[in-house]
Amino acid sequence: MNFSSKLIEDSVNAFASLPGIGKKTALRLTLHLLSMPPEISEGLCEPVLKMRKEIQFCATCNNISDTVVCSICSNTARDQSVICVVESIRDIMAIENTNQYRGLFHVLGGVISPIEGVGPGDLNIESLMDRVKAGTSKEIIMAISPTIDGDTTIFYLSKQLEAFDVKVTTLARGISFGGELEYADELTLGRSIAARRLYEE
Amino acid sequence: MNFSSKLIEDSVNAFASLPGIGKKTALRLTLHLLSMPPEISEGLCEPVLKMRKEIQFCATCNNISDTVVCSICSNTARDQSVICVVESIRDIMAIENTNQYRGLFHVLGGVISPIEGVGPGDLNIESLMDRVKAGTSKEIIMAISPTIDGDTTIFYLSKQLEAFDVKVTTLARGISFGGELEYADELTLGRSIAARRLYEE
Repeated sequence: MNFSSKLIEDSVNAFASLPGIGKKTALRLTLHLLSMPPEISEGLCEPVLKMRKEIQFCATCNNISDTVVCSICSNTARDQSVICVVESIRDIMAIENTNQYRGLFHVLGGVISPIEGVGPGDLNIESLMDRVKAGTSKEIIMAISPTIDGDTTIFYLSKQLEAFDVKVTTLARGISFGGELEYADELTLGRSIAARRLYEE
Repeated sequence: MNFSSKLIEDSVNAFASLPGIGKKTALRLTLHLLSMPPEISEGLCEPVLKMRKEIQFCATCNNISDTVVCSICSNTARDQSVICVVESIRDIMAIENTNQYRGLFHVLGGVISPIEGVGPGDLNIESLMDRVKAGTSKEIIMAISPTIDGDTTIFYLSKQLEAFDVKVTTLARGISFGGELEYADELTLGRSIAARRLYEE
């Protein structure tokens, strides 16, 4: 594309460097900002730069935080005896949006993946063990993706946690609510039959 | 959505203020920048702010420009006797990308639209007339959208240009190249039959 302006071209390339934004969308965004007063461009960039510069990671659970300890860890109304172990901060947001969980979190920062060269030492496992050693935890929930790497990670963590007096649980697995049986994948359906439960009203 | 961080929330809202970007995409962009070094965020914002601050509009044709006169107007290799009148800078980019036009441009900044309260005085018509008065122009091409407002604008401009010794032309209208007849709209197809031309090999 020929923009006949280096300034426009640089701005388009900047937007197009973001995931999921192509050259055409980048041009649309650039021309949108161009048609607006300069304050709008500053109003876009200022919070983004501030966020990147000032964001912290919670000293306890590694969640993103505006302060040294995040708003979840510092909330004494939450159940301090349960820790939900997740891969990323995205998962915390997803679980928080369900409004079904009132305990604490711990962000691993990924899963053990021999193929991608991620070992236990690359994850925030040490700090999880320190929290468990403190002795306030009664249950550790493994809210980790049901993949091979995820299952490896759960297995590794459960072995590490055997030494402590805590209950290790995983998310319930089975067919999705509202889903139709014929569209469920074979593995999920097969395991759901094998792990069938007594019907409770 | 609950972001548990004011910084994240502000950044998400900033991205979501852009056209075509919703809260979910805005969160994805924010978390992407968060996972990258701070230089990446600066590399995004710096060209955007620079563009908005330093961009100029060509003193001759109102095209966007890095200098007082744009790269098209200042290019003496281009045909100085033809002016292509367009609504916006987006149209200049579209026409330049065809590589079929080697003349000059003039950006109106919109079309006459009584419904939206846009009159001839709101458009860059005065400056177009000044350019025609200078006497170097032989042809004025109306590259304006084939809508009711667009046709009104072309009619108004052609009346204004009657006093000068210039040829006024419009873009060819008819069925699209590569299109299929059955999918052409009735108005276009009807007018294409009425305005049929002698076949030339």
